[in-house]
Amino acid sequence: MATTEQERNAESADTAQESDAAGGELRADPGRLAADLERLSEIGADPGGGISRISFSQEERAAHNLVSGWMVDLGLSVHTDSFGNTFGTLAGTDPTLPAIGFGSHLDSVPHGGRFDGTIGVLAGLEVIRMFAESDIKTAHPLMVVAFACEEGARFGEPCLGSKAVADVLQEADMERLRDANGTTLAQAMRALNFDPLALPQARWAPNTLAAFLELHIEQARSLEEGGERIGLVDAIAGNTRIRLVITGRQDHSGGTPMSQRRDALAAAAEVILAAESIANEPRRRATVATVGRLHVFPNSITTIPGDVEFYLDVRDVDSDRQRLTTRDIVSRAEETAARRGLRCEWEVVSDTSPVVLPKWLRDLTTAATDRLDVPHRVTTSGAGHDAGILSRAIPTAMLFVPSRDGLSHCPEEWTSMDDIAIGAHALAESIRNIDSFLTKEVAE
Amino acid sequence: MATTEQERNAESADTAQESDAAGGELRADPGRLAADLERLSEIGADPGGGISRISFSQEERAAHNLVSGWMVDLGLSVHTDSFGNTFGTLAGTDPTLPAIGFGSHLDSVPHGGRFDGTIGVLAGLEVIRMFAESDIKTAHPLMVVAFACEEGARFGEPCLGSKAVADVLQEADMERLRDANGTTLAQAMRALNFDPLALPQARWAPNTLAAFLELHIEQARSLEEGGERIGLVDAIAGNTRIRLVITGRQDHSGGTPMSQRRDALAAAAEVILAAESIANEPRRRATVATVGRLHVFPNSITTIPGDVEFYLDVRDVDSDRQRLTTRDIVSRAEETAARRGLRCEWEVVSDTSPVVLPKWLRDLTTAATDRLDVPHRVTTSGAGHDAGILSRAIPTAMLFVPSRDGLSHCPEEWTSMDDIAIGAHALAESIRNIDSFLTKEVAE
Repeated sequence: MATTEQERNAESADTAQESDAAGGELRADPGRLAADLERLSEIGADPGGGISRISFSQEERAAHNLVSGWMVDLGLSVHTDSFGNTFGTLAGTDPTLPAIGFGSHLDSVPHGGRFDGTIGVLAGLEVIRMFAESDIKTAHPLMVVAFACEEGARFGEPCLGSKAVADVLQEADMERLRDANGTTLAQAMRALNFDPLALPQARWAPNTLAAFLELHIEQARSLEEGGERIGLVDAIAGNTRIRLVITGRQDHSGGTPMSQRRDALAAAAEVILAAESIANEPRRRATVATVGRLHVFPNSITTIPGDVEFYLDVRDVDSDRQRLTTRDIVSRAEETAARRGLRCEWEVVSDTSPVVLPKWLRDLTTAATDRLDVPHRVTTSGAGHDAGILSRAIPTAMLFVPSRDGLSHCPEEWTSMDDIAIGAHALAESIRNIDSFLTKEVAE
Repeated sequence: MATTEQERNAESADTAQESDAAGGELRADPGRLAADLERLSEIGADPGGGISRISFSQEERAAHNLVSGWMVDLGLSVHTDSFGNTFGTLAGTDPTLPAIGFGSHLDSVPHGGRFDGTIGVLAGLEVIRMFAESDIKTAHPLMVVAFACEEGARFGEPCLGSKAVADVLQEADMERLRDANGTTLAQAMRALNFDPLALPQARWAPNTLAAFLELHIEQARSLEEGGERIGLVDAIAGNTRIRLVITGRQDHSGGTPMSQRRDALAAAAEVILAAESIANEPRRRATVATVGRLHVFPNSITTIPGDVEFYLDVRDVDSDRQRLTTRDIVSRAEETAARRGLRCEWEVVSDTSPVVLPKWLRDLTTAATDRLDVPHRVTTSGAGHDAGILSRAIPTAMLFVPSRDGLSHCPEEWTSMDDIAIGAHALAESIRNIDSFLTKEVAE
């Protein structure tokens, strides 16, 4: 019985090759997936296109309620935990085994797309339907998961639902995290009749899941450019977010000679370009650094900016390089401000280390994808995911489907229903492989 | 009879020296000015300090109504024109002469200060009181002027009230100019019961004014740093405003390698620094260039900016250099966008040439200020003013009083009541000088 990761890595490749799980041919139905997606996309639909199903909003809850109903229709036993995560469980043939979980999230960024998160949950439901149609029974229970509050757009910190179950979110975070209106996470939860004090009840007991799989859109262009239909994720980049405020002096744009200016925006411009050039250094090949959000005060044509607030987002699959790059850029901000006679303040808004996903599980998902006879490749996730949070406690795998033009977090986000169906099929085959692999392991 | 500017320039210096106009000693009362300013500052007062008396708002009209009432109390004949400018006229001893006008404006930028514009109107009222107390009668009628809609903050283009009387504002501008909410100037006027079609009635007949004087806060630090109490303006800088939009590609900050980015904010940052360094070139000593307003879309921490809209404000007392600098910066924006594979669009929002104010009138205001025995200096206005618009048709002079820390367009804007009283005194003496100079000229 191999239960350490090293042992599993040694065995999975062989086992996966010879795997020939019981049950008929699986078939994912793009039409069924499209119909579900159409229904879900009515919730939080923006008048001008796009989806605004913000974390801990009525719209997010409506989406969870709709999916809960579908889970019930599929014969799953449904549970919504104290943080708003929704789980639909199907019993396996061996009641002693922990579940195999799969899913994603149902919230979106403001004016985001229909696919991000959502298709991972819908593919999970499709897997249940595919297994039922082909009369496949797994030894492990199957648990379709819809995490709450994955997007960091509202509270600055992402993956709150998975952090709640993985014991990463703490009671103190309930009051610390605030949205742009100053609403705390606790207040947002209470407004939807969730009790923030019940957070401990959401935490998973050890061995709740034997493994977790997340199917997601790639949010990048590598699959599209390479012509692959499935990406098998080997690592999820870590992510450090810094809020910087540069304070200069608000002056009249006409009355102040260049030499007397303390222009906060000119200083911020230097930092933005420094972030770009530091991330571009050859020794940081996989590092990305972005300033995506910036506010100028007072933001008037005729006033030299007195304050600029902006956010730096640094990501890397190497945690040392992630932190070093962040430090280098922040140092440059401090130097720039000092040289210009301005003040620079900064704080860490969130900091997540990269995770390397277990090779044995990727071997099993790779073998499963091989059976579909579609081009696929191993890839890295620059975006963070609930899978990355769970992977610290539970063996986790991720599968990507292509994003058209790499676009996400915008109304133009798009993945074909055929690609989503291929993803659901690969997910189903992967679950069969894992069920079979882990069952043999127990039997040995 | 000297009536060309050249002839007046030759004569004013001599005449001013020997001027000894009839009437008693003049005294401006800081307490009276303070009481008026206090009352006016209640209109549009922000809860957190500062003034929001936006162009064509209820608050601006309330300020005009309050001042109109004060004008009536002072025995002036009051007229509000079809554009909302308010005039209070006192007859002179010679009914054949045009008036000497003086004043400023009553609107403010959002969250601006109490002094900008307002003190020019209040000093005008104080002049009327000072002349009455000292029993001074001028040959020319005196006209206290409160222009409407001087600040460009709302409609992007400044000095609309003075442009209306000077025939610079045209009917087409009524529909062209829009505020951030899309409200046209015509709509804003109608909402306050002004008829935009009546614009032609606001235009001044030739010879309405013999001269115009504007007292204003400096909005810069030169008087404060030099220890002077009065600035005598020789020229008002021209001002070109350009709206630029750089369009890149909105992408996920995690999923997009540095090499594949089309980051609109990084490109804008280059342009901001180019504007700063171009304006800093030694050959452009008096040029200032500012990016004070900038919007990022979608402005999310995890999204590479797809679009950045920003405004460039270039000022100079040399019109060639003003236009050349603008062109150089815009060319740099186009080059930057092209090099990065982005799109750059731009449009001229407003373009005003510098004006040199007539020397003969400045000699008269200088001679008047000499009598006060306070330090004064000749200076240049970087900010635009109604006086600059009028000076194209009417001999115009400007007097500055110090701005603490050079601050304006912010709640911290401040000038001492003593300095305002000194300014009102200098204004009154200047008006006496001009009345006397022009009367002699007519008599010769």
